[in-house]
Amino acid sequence: MLLMGRNEACHKGIHSMEILVVGTVTLDTVETPSRRVEDVLGGSGVYAAIAASFFKCHVQLVGVIGGDFPHAYTDFLQTRGIDLQGVKRVEDGKSFRWGGRYTEDFNVRDTLFTELNVIEGFQPILPETYKDTPYLFLANNAPALQLRIIEQATNPKLVVCDTMDFWINEEREALEALFARVDVLILNDSEARLLTGDANLVRAAETILRYGPERVIVKKGEHGAISITESSYFNAPAYPIRQVADPTGAGDSFAGGMMGYLAAVGEISEAAIRSAMVYGAVVASFNIEDFSINRQKRVQFSEISTRYRELQDAVRF
Amino acid sequence: MLLMGRNEACHKGIHSMEILVVGTVTLDTVETPSRRVEDVLGGSGVYAAIAASFFKCHVQLVGVIGGDFPHAYTDFLQTRGIDLQGVKRVEDGKSFRWGGRYTEDFNVRDTLFTELNVIEGFQPILPETYKDTPYLFLANNAPALQLRIIEQATNPKLVVCDTMDFWINEEREALEALFARVDVLILNDSEARLLTGDANLVRAAETILRYGPERVIVKKGEHGAISITESSYFNAPAYPIRQVADPTGAGDSFAGGMMGYLAAVGEISEAAIRSAMVYGAVVASFNIEDFSINRQKRVQFSEISTRYRELQDAVRF
Repeated sequence: MLLMGRNEACHKGIHSMEILVVGTVTLDTVETPSRRVEDVLGGSGVYAAIAASFFKCHVQLVGVIGGDFPHAYTDFLQTRGIDLQGVKRVEDGKSFRWGGRYTEDFNVRDTLFTELNVIEGFQPILPETYKDTPYLFLANNAPALQLRIIEQATNPKLVVCDTMDFWINEEREALEALFARVDVLILNDSEARLLTGDANLVRAAETILRYGPERVIVKKGEHGAISITESSYFNAPAYPIRQVADPTGAGDSFAGGMMGYLAAVGEISEAAIRSAMVYGAVVASFNIEDFSINRQKRVQFSEISTRYRELQDAVRF
Repeated sequence: MLLMGRNEACHKGIHSMEILVVGTVTLDTVETPSRRVEDVLGGSGVYAAIAASFFKCHVQLVGVIGGDFPHAYTDFLQTRGIDLQGVKRVEDGKSFRWGGRYTEDFNVRDTLFTELNVIEGFQPILPETYKDTPYLFLANNAPALQLRIIEQATNPKLVVCDTMDFWINEEREALEALFARVDVLILNDSEARLLTGDANLVRAAETILRYGPERVIVKKGEHGAISITESSYFNAPAYPIRQVADPTGAGDSFAGGMMGYLAAVGEISEAAIRSAMVYGAVVASFNIEDFSINRQKRVQFSEISTRYRELQDAVRF
């Protein structure tokens, strides 16, 4: 009951239930061996915000779109209760477009094109009403920009960041400055290895802890995720999916679902974070069953609960 | 108490505690970036038998060695309570030798040489006293040979087989005939994909079930293992190891530890198999911390119990 958010009144004003998601809002073109879709709703901010919106929380999105961005997409986000005050529409600009292609086994993704458009030079300014948001998720972005968001936050209770190989290679210093200010760093296994030069994931995550985050979460795709702090180790399972349609947005759905759960329960204990990671894994498992956010449109909270319980059973011994 | 076997009397005669391990007994040369060892004790049968010997069971090994095989090695196996009646010493033959080299991250293993020697043409005949053994582990071998072992068993309660890519490519028909006769097939993720042509592991394991085994266990190295039956799905964690010395024998240690536990508890329920897989993972985690079976020589059962409990905590949510 506590968790069922979307169909109930949003409790704006109760700070512990507010989430800020800063990420991209894009028009994606995705090719898989079986299908191609063009200019569909995508972006790290969108995937994370929708994932969070399954839980009883108020999701506030920050990003930028062009005048060409379909109103049907922003309308849809609003029907999910997502606050778009922080999404700037540049009427004479073009939206960020990304194109990618997956191989048969979904293990390789080739980027076909990246048209930054309105995103180039975008400096996110938090609306006044967003500044005291307690839960911050900063999707992959230039670390200096992620840092400036944190600096605008007046009441952060939990700051979670994602990053990617590009910034590890190109903006190492800015990234380390960022790490000192985040509570939880989420990255995938290859990025953890790249960041530390250590092939051993456990050691790599421990090394990253020394950069500043209290917790490092390493995403391993179909193998789940691990969470490491100074005093804890958690091995989160992935939900076994038989038919992957499009893995785009899985990582951001994981993070968004995790944040949504944490905001809904209003605590950030080890136990809450473990449950949150599994809820995140479940929300991500639905996301990859269809292109764009199509599967998410149909997911009922009861289905999320069912998969969560299935995972509880799957790890029991 | 039930599980602490090695230092207590072996209960020969109580059938439920007997295990048959059929596998190789070899002299290995292993190179890693940090060290090289030559003619050390190795082989699938050895790793599995030693792993099983941590539990309260009577381990019976079947294999072949040459006249050059050090008595110190066979003496050591006997101090572990391993019954070597089924290990044939060919005095005028040379032992099976294998050489392998690992890359920095231990993800790639190059075979440097394989000298079959006495193993060539070896047809394992079970000693009379072995024939009614209830727990059979048939390590990777020619499937026709694995099948002939099963045919000699008069009282099999649980037949577990391993295999490898070579047989999947070269002996497909014999392999399918074998699958119809085994209860549990253990293979690694790349082998499951090769066998089915399916990149999706869950679907691949389900396809393999249709070949005959009641249960398919897919080993995923550092990512743990999954077990699938018609009605169950189990996600077993790997124990997080910070310093891998030599991964040789990890898979056989996993299988041997699993069999040892099952024989010790004398049941093969879903719950028992889940615990057994985790004990297997723990025993394997020790094995890779040193070359050959060196780490295993020093492992106390209390250390196994500790890691088992740590894994229980690591998956709890």
